Amino acid sequence: MPQTPWVFASRMDNVRRSFIREILKVTADPSIISFAGGLPQPGLFPAAALAKAAESVIAGSGSESLQYSTTEGDPELRRFIAGRYKLRFGLDVDPDWIIITTGSQQALDLLAKAFLDPGDGVLVERPGYIGAIQLFSLFQAEFASVPLDDDGPDPEALGAALSGPAPKLFYSVPNFQNPSGITWSKARRELAAGLLADSPTILIEDDPYGELRFLGEHQTPLYALRPERTFLLGSFSKVVSPGLRVGWLVADPESRVKLVTAKQASDLHTSTLAQRILVRYLAENDLSAHVESIKSAYRRQRDLMVARIEELFPPEARCTRPEGGMFLWITLPDGVSAYDVFDAAIKEKVAFVPGGPFFVDGTGANTMRLNFSNSDEERIDVGMRRLAACLDKVLSRPSSCGAAS
Amino acid sequence: MPQTPWVFASRMDNVRRSFIREILKVTADPSIISFAGGLPQPGLFPAAALAKAAESVIAGSGSESLQYSTTEGDPELRRFIAGRYKLRFGLDVDPDWIIITTGSQQALDLLAKAFLDPGDGVLVERPGYIGAIQLFSLFQAEFASVPLDDDGPDPEALGAALSGPAPKLFYSVPNFQNPSGITWSKARRELAAGLLADSPTILIEDDPYGELRFLGEHQTPLYALRPERTFLLGSFSKVVSPGLRVGWLVADPESRVKLVTAKQASDLHTSTLAQRILVRYLAENDLSAHVESIKSAYRRQRDLMVARIEELFPPEARCTRPEGGMFLWITLPDGVSAYDVFDAAIKEKVAFVPGGPFFVDGTGANTMRLNFSNSDEERIDVGMRRLAACLDKVLSRPSSCGAAS
Repeated sequence: MPQTPWVFASRMDNVRRSFIREILKVTADPSIISFAGGLPQPGLFPAAALAKAAESVIAGSGSESLQYSTTEGDPELRRFIAGRYKLRFGLDVDPDWIIITTGSQQALDLLAKAFLDPGDGVLVERPGYIGAIQLFSLFQAEFASVPLDDDGPDPEALGAALSGPAPKLFYSVPNFQNPSGITWSKARRELAAGLLADSPTILIEDDPYGELRFLGEHQTPLYALRPERTFLLGSFSKVVSPGLRVGWLVADPESRVKLVTAKQASDLHTSTLAQRILVRYLAENDLSAHVESIKSAYRRQRDLMVARIEELFPPEARCTRPEGGMFLWITLPDGVSAYDVFDAAIKEKVAFVPGGPFFVDGTGANTMRLNFSNSDEERIDVGMRRLAACLDKVLSRPSSCGAAS
Repeated sequence: MPQTPWVFASRMDNVRRSFIREILKVTADPSIISFAGGLPQPGLFPAAALAKAAESVIAGSGSESLQYSTTEGDPELRRFIAGRYKLRFGLDVDPDWIIITTGSQQALDLLAKAFLDPGDGVLVERPGYIGAIQLFSLFQAEFASVPLDDDGPDPEALGAALSGPAPKLFYSVPNFQNPSGITWSKARRELAAGLLADSPTILIEDDPYGELRFLGEHQTPLYALRPERTFLLGSFSKVVSPGLRVGWLVADPESRVKLVTAKQASDLHTSTLAQRILVRYLAENDLSAHVESIKSAYRRQRDLMVARIEELFPPEARCTRPEGGMFLWITLPDGVSAYDVFDAAIKEKVAFVPGGPFFVDGTGANTMRLNFSNSDEERIDVGMRRLAACLDKVLSRPSSCGAAS
């Protein structure tokens, strides 16, 4: 009997598999030096302390740590997160406003479930985080985008985007953004908060990298400047371990009820065990000291990558100079294709992510994302020399490609 | 400045918080003997073995077990699951067809994302699993339902439900159903497979309890009888630990691509650590032997609960006699309200779940769900005596209420 074809939901029409995932398959070859992924450096995971915490919460209180638990998340973990906002920013967050999520990616899913009807407008940064673009595509958002400069969203473009029909959501990563490494300045934060003050637009402030600042001063969260319609997201993925899949969302009491309902339907609750391991780890270890060790390694790696760009890259390749996080961003001259650079680079056993998929308006073909967190200094040195040679080649200096590798 | 009210997505209109969750708050009082929850017995969690597995996968391979991992899930874990289908049923499942999910609840979310447009028809059992009803409500399904008798879905009603305009999905729990404890007989499975053979309706066969059969013979999964448009779901929650949040979904290659995309957008992947702990635990321990110990405890508890019903309950209260799982189901005479019984029972410090919320057609006010997995024999004995007295009272034998407690 011939099978009739599957009929998928219309929301699946616009969603493709992540281009980055496809690239990561290519770069699974260990001989390739990859600046493509977005992984924290696994050598910095506090494995011994987490092993001890895990053994102790399971053996000591398995009846709780292995059982079902509340959808809102572990109360002790929510108190820790609230305490850390107080410590870092003097910010008062009621632990009851925090919902623990299965990674901060899930917070996006819950917000979309609670707020997005098909065709609702979603404003994103240009470039923007691809996981958010993918998720909001699944909820049939109509995208608009605001370009970023070195200080954050372009003021004029942001004003224009918020002054017409208000977008339902504005999704942003104001600290050390993925993919660009850009951080919103104080002035831009105040400008955005002012523009949003009278607006019904919901701001999603996604902050997975904020703790990882190794240059300059911490910036006040937008949530502190405009709390009414802002959801602040965080994650333990970059400061403890992504494999635990524990993130969170700060929500006002009214929308919290809807978000908890959405979470309950989505996965009942986040792993009790992962939450209890974190609670124990955080009680018995100094997170700030651990974060310092991550920052010190990432800073060295970032400095080396920037130094090699300044020494070796053709001057037409402009790069961001991130003050933290895990990524930097290269913009090539108009008309130059980062895909051509990618093809040349793979032949020379070095990889990165072409920036086009981070743009919702189809531009960005001349951009590149480089990750510096997950390569040691030796590989950064070798990889950046290879990449410089490939760039020279694509920018019409064919003699040097491959020579430096 | 006055705040404009939140505007939630239209999908939130029909979704209420789980009634069961509200009940569980009432029953948090430890002096109440609760048959209301749906928890496995925590004393049976293999805590020592899991503690050892956790310590060893984190300390021994933290770089992998604490890192991001693939959306599809751990390959070793998927091979284990496939191997178990082969062992239990002689069923060939390619490990590549399995997607690991954050509990089997997430499998419902992914299937709804991939297949459900607003207004699509979803057929559920009557009574049906409330977590599925809640999730499909969120995706704006139009529900129809088929009543269950002791052998599964009523044949005539099932025929009628599948012969009109085909529902997009048919959601079922054919083994030891939550809430009723009912198992589909061999004949009903064959009937359903026949009715579905020529139908475009997608069958979701949710099987969280199937391993926990303590009476009778294992039944062939519907997936084996009608594989083309059936998604088979499973979970480690009832046989190892629910706190890990690890379930799975068996999908054909074409829809698998869509489901993986939906999962990636939803939470990137299920906890690497929880998956690696399970892989280690399953390699070093005999799951079948562990399942035997769970079954033996649950069987004793179920037998005692059924015995007390037969001895003490008024004969008008009919109960199912589950051959496995965690629940049994009471049907009171028409016109008797299980909510009245609930109110009386709470005063006597015993709790259960009134069955109404498990019915999508507004009926079922005269039904009750009792959980037998999470109370020891002493509490079952005391609790069932209290409940019998309350039932007597509500069924107009006022003299005895409370006397037996």
